[in-house]
Amino acid sequence: MARIAVLGAGYMGSAVTFPLAERGHEVRLWGTWLDDELVRASRAGRHPRLKRPLPPTVEVLDSGALARAVQDADAVFIAIASEGFVPVFERLLPHIGPDTPLFCLTKGFIRAEGGALEPAGGILRVSEAASLLCTRARGRPVGRWAAIGGPVKAVELADGIPTGSVYGLSDPSMAELAASFRTPTYRTIPSADVTGVELCAALKNAYAIALGICDGMYGPQPGRFYDNAKAFLLGASVLEMGAIVEAAGGSRESAAGLPGAGDLYVTAQSGRNRKFGELIGSGIPAGEAYSRMNAAGEIAEGYHALLHGRDYIGQLGGGLPDRLPLFRTLHAMVCRGESLTGLQRLFESYPQG
Amino acid sequence: MARIAVLGAGYMGSAVTFPLAERGHEVRLWGTWLDDELVRASRAGRHPRLKRPLPPTVEVLDSGALARAVQDADAVFIAIASEGFVPVFERLLPHIGPDTPLFCLTKGFIRAEGGALEPAGGILRVSEAASLLCTRARGRPVGRWAAIGGPVKAVELADGIPTGSVYGLSDPSMAELAASFRTPTYRTIPSADVTGVELCAALKNAYAIALGICDGMYGPQPGRFYDNAKAFLLGASVLEMGAIVEAAGGSRESAAGLPGAGDLYVTAQSGRNRKFGELIGSGIPAGEAYSRMNAAGEIAEGYHALLHGRDYIGQLGGGLPDRLPLFRTLHAMVCRGESLTGLQRLFESYPQG
Repeated sequence: MARIAVLGAGYMGSAVTFPLAERGHEVRLWGTWLDDELVRASRAGRHPRLKRPLPPTVEVLDSGALARAVQDADAVFIAIASEGFVPVFERLLPHIGPDTPLFCLTKGFIRAEGGALEPAGGILRVSEAASLLCTRARGRPVGRWAAIGGPVKAVELADGIPTGSVYGLSDPSMAELAASFRTPTYRTIPSADVTGVELCAALKNAYAIALGICDGMYGPQPGRFYDNAKAFLLGASVLEMGAIVEAAGGSRESAAGLPGAGDLYVTAQSGRNRKFGELIGSGIPAGEAYSRMNAAGEIAEGYHALLHGRDYIGQLGGGLPDRLPLFRTLHAMVCRGESLTGLQRLFESYPQG
Repeated sequence: MARIAVLGAGYMGSAVTFPLAERGHEVRLWGTWLDDELVRASRAGRHPRLKRPLPPTVEVLDSGALARAVQDADAVFIAIASEGFVPVFERLLPHIGPDTPLFCLTKGFIRAEGGALEPAGGILRVSEAASLLCTRARGRPVGRWAAIGGPVKAVELADGIPTGSVYGLSDPSMAELAASFRTPTYRTIPSADVTGVELCAALKNAYAIALGICDGMYGPQPGRFYDNAKAFLLGASVLEMGAIVEAAGGSRESAAGLPGAGDLYVTAQSGRNRKFGELIGSGIPAGEAYSRMNAAGEIAEGYHALLHGRDYIGQLGGGLPDRLPLFRTLHAMVCRGESLTGLQRLFESYPQG
């Protein structure tokens, strides 16, 4: 039994407390300053997003109690939205030892804003940002880091639906701890590919928009399905994710397996990025679709993955952008307002090269 | 403009005449002795499976007119069910030259039954069977062969839905012809991986059963979805197809792209193999589910892919079966009547090794 702090009381942080509690770990769930209402409601008996009580052994702490949440923790889960990662991680560092294992559920890219995160304007993977912040704080990079990916809908995880999640471990010594989170229905699968797992976790949100757009454009026509077109996009997405991962030094296997193909499948079935795509496909300009969802408290992370992903891919160089026709098309349609005919032109651009 | 014979007037043979005719090719569609009713109805104005008239320039020929169908053909499409492949191919050979390009839409494995196909009882890929038959007939293997794969529902192809199909070409000289089949919505994508494309085309039918079983087991519970579990199965399927393809000398990229991940996605969304899995998942014994569908004229090809695929994988040797836990579980559940708890045990067997 380990003492485990989970930072972030949203969907995923709260959901992961279910298997952790089931395995008998001592779990403290800490909510950020944006999670106060989630914390209050959870204490009152029901997590508003998961729509059920949290496991009774989980201690729920509010934003003022970070130090207490992580005190003597054997491991820390980070389940903060990517926008909030840097401020939370900076507050966290003074409270944990240099070798405390960190399990990261945060997905997405982080834009360097100077300070420890250089060059300003550059795009970092979450583990890269963490290491830079760590190096500034204590002169050495993150010791033990797990990038968590794979197809996990939080509600289904809390519900005990069979779920596979890949843990990309920076250090093989973390495998034992990762195994201790496993239940009969939550299967933690170790991998050595931190880079591939975290890139797929970010990129699949971008590619899921494509399948949503397809449904938005074509879906309303009765009796006509567009499975061929969606499968075309899915296959192209997996290949492009593989190319990006490989260029970044990761393994194509991550893109072909649960972190890439698997997670893209689940993300495209439902959820915010798919909905964002559907709105765009139905003719609503991307900016308006984003604002409309944002006003309802729904952030389409895929938009940021496209915006930041484009710069990240540019940093990798080597003519990579030319090998990513779907990513380029999505970026043009979603971030630069190019018309929906871009999708038809994309189809017509195959085969490439 | 080329003269093109399409053998087999079922779903896929008939559907591929749409882009071929659109590109102005002279198309002759030949029905086997099992297709007489399809031929009659098509001539009368409506293909019964595609539920629409065939393109007006397509000449529809019945089973007695094979010689005429392939006379002076610049290319022959083979769109015969795998059970019928050997007798049709044997009849075809005397009528075509040794270098006539053959484009194969037949999916599945072929069990050698002696004669040219040795060793009796062995399992062959379609291109292997074709080459053995060719060698016996004329002393040399097939000259130019394309294995066609990727996510193509026939009705959508006929309907002009954007569709990508990978042509695994044995000879790069066939690329020009494959390009001449392309329309704005039917994108033929050349590949050098005959083995990988044809293996994925066969295997995806087996793996699609898994996603159907999952829906059959869990689907009827209102408000509960099993996207995590299905995505887990999808990701595992893509990795296992990649391992099989690689062991057979093909490329893992075929499994990660349109022939593998893409085609599995579309096959699992709907269709006979998915339905077969749903019936099994709902508690109907596999044999009864197969018979019931068969009586309605629906053949669950995935059943044969499991049965023959197991032997094919065994032939590849090298401990491959041990690296395919999902395939093994499916085979046990579908072909040997093992109970549905096999799926839960499968989940619990991850991570492997």
